[in-house]
Parts: sequence; C-alpha cells; structure tokens
Amino acid sequence: MQISYPSVLLEEAIQAFHQLPGIGKKTALRLVLHLLRQDDEQVEAFCNAIAKLKKEVKYCQVCHNISDTDICNICSNPQRDGQCICVVENIREVMAVEATQQFHGLYHVLGGLIAPMDGIGPNDLEINSLVERVAQGDVKEVILALSATSEGDATAFYIYRKLSAFPVSISVLARGISVGDELEYADELTLGRSILNRTPFK
Amino acid sequence: MQISYPSVLLEEAIQAFHQLPGIGKKTALRLVLHLLRQDDEQVEAFCNAIAKLKKEVKYCQVCHNISDTDICNICSNPQRDGQCICVVENIREVMAVEATQQFHGLYHVLGGLIAPMDGIGPNDLEINSLVERVAQGDVKEVILALSATSEGDATAFYIYRKLSAFPVSISVLARGISVGDELEYADELTLGRSILNRTPFK
Repeated sequence: MQISYPSVLLEEAIQAFHQLPGIGKKTALRLVLHLLRQDDEQVEAFCNAIAKLKKEVKYCQVCHNISDTDICNICSNPQRDGQCICVVENIREVMAVEATQQFHGLYHVLGGLIAPMDGIGPNDLEINSLVERVAQGDVKEVILALSATSEGDATAFYIYRKLSAFPVSISVLARGISVGDELEYADELTLGRSILNRTPFK
Repeated sequence: MQISYPSVLLEEAIQAFHQLPGIGKKTALRLVLHLLRQDDEQVEAFCNAIAKLKKEVKYCQVCHNISDTDICNICSNPQRDGQCICVVENIREVMAVEATQQFHGLYHVLGGLIAPMDGIGPNDLEINSLVERVAQGDVKEVILALSATSEGDATAFYIYRKLSAFPVSISVLARGISVGDELEYADELTLGRSILNRTPFK
C-alpha cells in the first residue's frame, strides 16, 4: 500500500531504520513509534550507544576482531593456544565458534570473503596480515572456518595457496550431515559428500 | 546459546537495539555490524534522524496525530469534511485508513485504548478532547474505527456513552469476512456474526 506520512521528521526516522537490513517500512514505523513512547533519556541512551560504538570501536591489532583494547581479550589470554589459528569471515563467526567451547586457539578475522562479483578482492581482506602471522613461525595449524559457499571455498583456496610455502598444517571444518538432521531432508550434495567422506564408527 | 561479546561498546549497542520490540539479540548484532560497516556520516545521520524526531516531534492540537506543524495537514485541509470524525487508536491507523482513500473527513487519535489491566484509563487517552470537539456542534458523524478486541470494544462503548448526549450519529466499522478470505478458514465468531449481520445483495 502507498503510505503517506503525516510528518517529515517521522518519515526521516522511519527511513533511517528502513535502511537497515531486514527492516521493512512497517517494522521501521513500529520501532520509531516505540522510541517515541520512551522517555527522552532512553532515546538519548539509544543514540549514544550507537554513536559511541561507531566512534570508539577498536579492532585487535593481531586478529582484527572487535575489541575495547589494542589487543583483544582472546589474543592477550596466555591460556589460549597460540600455535593454532582459526580463520573466520567476521566477528559473528568468532562468537559462534567461541560459543561451542571446542576451540582454545586464537582467531584471525578476515573481514569478509573474496567475492569478485561484489568487487571484494584478496587485498580488501586481512589475508596478508594472516600470512605475516604464520611467517613468524610460531603457528603450527591454521583452521579455515569459512562458509560452505563458493565465496568461502574460493577464499579458502586462495589462503591455502598463500600458506603452502610455510610448514603449517591447514585444515577445514568437517562437512556432512548436521547433528539432528533427518537424512530424508538432507540435500543430495551434502548427503553424497558425507558418504564419500565417511568416518570409522567409534 | 550463551554469547560472550568481545567488546563492551558492542554489547551496549546490541542491547540498545535489543530493547526495541521484535528485535532479538542476533538481529541486534546484525544491525549493529551493518552500521559499523557504514560511513561515519551515515551513522551520524541515523542517530540524528531519531534524536531530532524525539526532540522536535509535534502533535496536532486538534486531532493529536503526529505533525510537523501545530495543526496537521489533514485538519488544515479545507477539502476534508469537518463534519465527520474518524476515531482511531494511533497514528498507524490514521495511515491505514488514509491508504484506503475511502475516507475524506478528519481524525481523532486517542493515543491508545482503555486497558485497565495495563493501567490505562479513559483519562490517559484523548477522549475529553474528542467530547469537546463534538460539543462545538459542527460534527455530524463519529466513526469509531477501533480494533475488534475487548479493549477496542470497551473504548468504543465508553466513547459511545460520552457522546450519546450530543446530536451526532455514531458508527463503527463493518465486521465480517475479510475480502479474499475463504469461508472454510474464517473463525466461527466472525462467520456467525457475518450471518447475523448479512446485507442485501447489490
């Protein structure tokens, strides 16, 4: 339906929310009306939290994860295994891997994946700094924890070639049937690969 | 899953979005990361649009709709029929009715519905100002365009009694089967009422 807004101010605020991913105009209106019902202080706090993050955000100088300090909590933690680096696309994947509590090494955040169609090449990502970290010689293993998409595969292959000159073992995440999946609903490609890559029953 | 954020600033920004209705923590993170990728100016514009709306928003002195001016565009439009007032809960309903292009009178925005459970009584709403508008004598018809809920019905009944002393006709929206609905999926109450309130075939 064609919506006409009773106020330019309102329309601008709706437009601001509408620019965010996954926020349609109706949702934007709902969010704006919610903020209008809040106290002045709450709305100010909302705006401040965002402005402050944007202004003061830092990235870890080692792994490029978002951090409050020059070196992030993970990189500066002596209990983490500095010999193993998990390469991820973005901070979201750091949080996802951390949530599994199965990884005790360090991270390296690329800041994206190689995507020629979107104009993102290897030099737009933190790949050279990864090679430098590996070149320093302490790293024994690099885990490429990238999405199972063509961009993820291309990025993994590029990094694999860049690192092949170094005495470091390179691994990727296991692919197969998700835990809890019913076989009849698994897609053919995943099912086929998981047959080819079957593992001994333990 | 238990999420630990790598940055307090990030967590505060996520919390700010998470307070909005319908925004979970994962969505909040997605929105914040999107804003982080934007230019400084764009993020500033986002915050400004919201802060400005909150600071400068006005409500029409006649109908209490959001407006940029003291009297809103609809109330100040001489082509609208001042003899007919459509009473709605909120600005969203004004926009919905406007979008139908079927109504050419003026509005009266209550700012909510009577909801004793939520502590909202008649005096928290713009009901007295509606009675004053009707008391001035120009109004011939009041359309109660409220939600078909118990709160909507209670509010409509309250307003009906308040206005019964004045020579004004009071109507409510037609209730029945929605256009495009298949009968087999209509709920019993709606179907039953639409049989009782059947209209002559035209």
